[in-house]
Amino acid sequence: MDLTDTTENNWRNKIEQFLARPIIQHGIVFLILLNAVLLGMETSPEIMSQFGELLHILDHAILWIFIAELVLLMSARGLQFFKDPWCLFDFIVIGIALVPASESLAVLRSLRVLRVLRLINKFQSMKKVVRGLLGSLSSLGAVMGLMMVVFYVAAVVSTNLFGKEFSNYFGSLGASLFTLFQVMTLESWADGVARPVMEKFPDAWIFFVIYIMCSTFVVVNLFIAAIVDSFSNSDTETEDRQKLEAEIQREQQAQRLLSEINDEFIAIKTDLHEIKGLLASSFSKN
Amino acid sequence: MDLTDTTENNWRNKIEQFLARPIIQHGIVFLILLNAVLLGMETSPEIMSQFGELLHILDHAILWIFIAELVLLMSARGLQFFKDPWCLFDFIVIGIALVPASESLAVLRSLRVLRVLRLINKFQSMKKVVRGLLGSLSSLGAVMGLMMVVFYVAAVVSTNLFGKEFSNYFGSLGASLFTLFQVMTLESWADGVARPVMEKFPDAWIFFVIYIMCSTFVVVNLFIAAIVDSFSNSDTETEDRQKLEAEIQREQQAQRLLSEINDEFIAIKTDLHEIKGLLASSFSKN
Amino acid sequence: MDLTDTTENNWRNKIEQFLARPIIQHGIVFLILLNAVLLGMETSPEIMSQFGELLHILDHAILWIFIAELVLLMSARGLQFFKDPWCLFDFIVIGIALVPASESLAVLRSLRVLRVLRLINKFQSMKKVVRGLLGSLSSLGAVMGLMMVVFYVAAVVSTNLFGKEFSNYFGSLGASLFTLFQVMTLESWADGVARPVMEKFPDAWIFFVIYIMCSTFVVVNLFIAAIVDSFSNSDTETEDRQKLEAEIQREQQAQRLLSEINDEFIAIKTDLHEIKGLLASSFSKN
Amino acid sequence: MDLTDTTENNWRNKIEQFLARPIIQHGIVFLILLNAVLLGMETSPEIMSQFGELLHILDHAILWIFIAELVLLMSARGLQFFKDPWCLFDFIVIGIALVPASESLAVLRSLRVLRVLRLINKFQSMKKVVRGLLGSLSSLGAVMGLMMVVFYVAAVVSTNLFGKEFSNYFGSLGASLFTLFQVMTLESWADGVARPVMEKFPDAWIFFVIYIMCSTFVVVNLFIAAIVDSFSNSDTETEDRQKLEAEIQREQQAQRLLSEINDEFIAIKTDLHEIKGLLASSFSKN
Repeated sequence: MDLTDTTENNWRNKIEQFLARPIIQHGIVFLILLNAVLLGMETSPEIMSQFGELLHILDHAILWIFIAELVLLMSARGLQFFKDPWCLFDFIVIGIALVPASESLAVLRSLRVLRVLRLINKFQSMKKVVRGLLGSLSSLGAVMGLMMVVFYVAAVVSTNLFGKEFSNYFGSLGASLFTLFQVMTLESWADGVARPVMEKFPDAWIFFVIYIMCSTFVVVNLFIAAIVDSFSNSDTETEDRQKLEAEIQREQQAQRLLSEINDEFIAIKTDLHEIKGLLASSFSKN
Repeated sequence: MDLTDTTENNWRNKIEQFLARPIIQHGIVFLILLNAVLLGMETSPEIMSQFGELLHILDHAILWIFIAELVLLMSARGLQFFKDPWCLFDFIVIGIALVPASESLAVLRSLRVLRVLRLINKFQSMKKVVRGLLGSLSSLGAVMGLMMVVFYVAAVVSTNLFGKEFSNYFGSLGASLFTLFQVMTLESWADGVARPVMEKFPDAWIFFVIYIMCSTFVVVNLFIAAIVDSFSNSDTETEDRQKLEAEIQREQQAQRLLSEINDEFIAIKTDLHEIKGLLASSFSKN
Repeated sequence: MDLTDTTENNWRNKIEQFLARPIIQHGIVFLILLNAVLLGMETSPEIMSQFGELLHILDHAILWIFIAELVLLMSARGLQFFKDPWCLFDFIVIGIALVPASESLAVLRSLRVLRVLRLINKFQSMKKVVRGLLGSLSSLGAVMGLMMVVFYVAAVVSTNLFGKEFSNYFGSLGASLFTLFQVMTLESWADGVARPVMEKFPDAWIFFVIYIMCSTFVVVNLFIAAIVDSFSNSDTETEDRQKLEAEIQREQQAQRLLSEINDEFIAIKTDLHEIKGLLASSFSKN
Repeated sequence: MDLTDTTENNWRNKIEQFLARPIIQHGIVFLILLNAVLLGMETSPEIMSQFGELLHILDHAILWIFIAELVLLMSARGLQFFKDPWCLFDFIVIGIALVPASESLAVLRSLRVLRVLRLINKFQSMKKVVRGLLGSLSSLGAVMGLMMVVFYVAAVVSTNLFGKEFSNYFGSLGASLFTLFQVMTLESWADGVARPVMEKFPDAWIFFVIYIMCSTFVVVNLFIAAIVDSFSNSDTETEDRQKLEAEIQREQQAQRLLSEINDEFIAIKTDLHEIKGLLASSFSKN
């Protein structure tokens, strides 16, 4: 049992090592980039009419290499594979390409380009950035929740108030949510949305001004929270902390030295008292 | 008297404890969310024509539960209830729902959705964010005041200058204030507002450029002040301060140790002098 | 001569003290606010047709009080008056009101509202904010200069390239500068400016994308420089510095103590050596 | 050989010193500014019809002075000249002016104004800002890369999905990239781009909302990274570090003092033991 385990590990390790080789990794990065270029060329009808066949063949060839890589990695890692979110992402992105691409699934077909996102997984620096982004997202949960509440409340209010007259912008809860997202980005909020509404409901400015103030205020706080968050994680900070901790250690050493000195004093004082005693006794003897 | 007081406190505490039970609080959070969904469904005419009755009954049932909670909390806290701004907010938001909702009060009716904002009160993290937002607002008072002054001055100037010709944008002080708010958000300020005005008043660009520079500059400073404010309150900062204070304490200890050592020295020196005196006298005797 | 000087100073001090009295200052703040409201009311034709006379009388009365305050302050301070930029500002703003307001000087008339800006001078906190804004401006000189250069270069290039075909947007250097300011604020830059231009000059996107990237990059750096600047001036920072300096002082004290201890050692060592010498000599004598 | 080298260096140094003279540098700054004004005047057809000849002559004169400066600097520095990016920039910018400016090269002609950018090279503070900007760019590489990937993926997806129906906005990969750049700046993204698309493809809002969230999120992080970067390089920080390091040095001195004191103790103890020994032997002798 132990032996098989080792053999198996050995075999798994060999696959991992094979896949981690620089030449293999560089090759896959090259293939992802090539695939990106091919997918870009497929958007041009002229190129498609001339080289459509060739592009499809290349696309399929690359896809099969990606599948081979994935299958190897899965066999090497077993169930561990599905615990790594990056591997899971690769799995889904490549899985999309295998769905039979009928005409009605044009959306799925165009999602094949998500494969290009696999590049992120191949560059440590980009991976770190994405991890940082997602990490800051989770710590911004409360502000996000607040924004959702503001959004939903404003959508219900605006649908009730303006829905009948301005069905295009506020006709349903969904339409209102989209319009309020637009207003939050400050895009055409006044000339496009608020002024036409205000011609029917002259007091509508109250709603828009309050909503813009609340939403931008929350967005600004989201932004500030992200800045504070990234500062507390920044390298500078860590370096400063390390220095501070080194300083604290040095001071603890200094204190230890001082208390040692204190101990010495006690020893010296005892010595001196002994000497005094000796002298005093010698004099008394004398 | 003492006894009644205790009994009453006992009875009040029991209500507080009952309302603070996790099951009650989770139930109320669920009802707020359910109410939000119901209010969202009420915006759809199709759903209303089919399930209008049911929605109204559910809405009323939830409202009565909210009222019951509020009455219990008021009886438990007495006048203390109105000192907590969150409780006051709950009181007003639920009070709105009790105003007889005639057709002419459509606005008040649609404000029922503000009940969803009670969610904030139920989540500590969101409550903290809102408190932070309001706290930073108060510390930004001076910048706010400055912005008001800039706003008002620009509104009076633009109404005087452009009011007659562009009554839609600058016809009255109110119209000008709204237009200047739009310009401050940079929405359609050039193609929508400034260029038409500049066709009549070619020098109007001076006003718009100065106003945009001033207002965005003040906004940016509002933003910076908020960043500085939130940094001085951030956890990181507090942690660093605690470390600094711990360090200062350690140093004060070190100093105390040093002065103790100094005292010891004086003692040693007296001892030595005594010894010298003894020796000298012994020699002189000899 | 000495006597007259003192008398004069006495008399000047009395005026200063009189003007600095809380009741006078609060009264002037009230008059500024009242004046602001009156100027706001003057923008409404209805109010003007009814109360025009009254408003003008009040406006003049307030103006004369302001002039009286200014004259008193000038007589109290003499030439020192013109060295304080706030006083100079008051002088100019009130001087505008005295220019004979013919119909052709409608612009000057509407600038009377600048008097409201005197409020800033009366509130220490707002004064501090404005001083901070102007202070950060001066330290941002280099970034400002860079922006001017980018602006001017882009204006000359765009006037040369697009001026003939799009005289409305790029017809002259001035028109180009305004359009580029608009593009910098990202207002309608694509649908309003770039797309029409790109229909004639398909490669114009290169100019717009480069210009937007450069200008927003410079703006972002202006913003960052302002943040860094205000952080280095913020109270938090100052507090931390004070703590640091207090710590440094404490350490210097500790070091002084240590060197004192060292001196003591030398004294003790001399004592000990003397004792040894005494003992040795006593033994040799024995 | 040594001699020639020195003579040559001498000669080269003299040229460098001549060019670095304040009067020469100020003169060149003046000529750059004058050239900027002249190029600005050349954009006006009226001025050109009157003073066209004069402007051209002045322009050529200034150009020849710039060429002379450049040739002198090149002869003084030799190949070193091309290693300084600022010198290289000067070389290219002035080289553009020498390309025969036929009518078909209107773009190249209008690029002559890039000469104004030479101003940056002449002011240390602006040079420092540009170096800072470029420096922060390189450290933001990973976020930039991520943005490119998001951009490209979104462009391929949108061209595939909306390309046929909205050829103006998403007709080709290039058109899509420009439109997505516009959407990223939030310019007319809703009323101009998304709403027309949503009339044909009602689910298109999913694409736009996801794209806006991703792109603004990446932009915000680019911004935050730049802030963090500039903080870690800011003078304040450096000053604080210098203080910290000075403090660390002081503490190391204190520690050295302490260990010296410890050494003294050992000496004192030995002395005391000797004394004790002496005394004891003296008593035993007695």
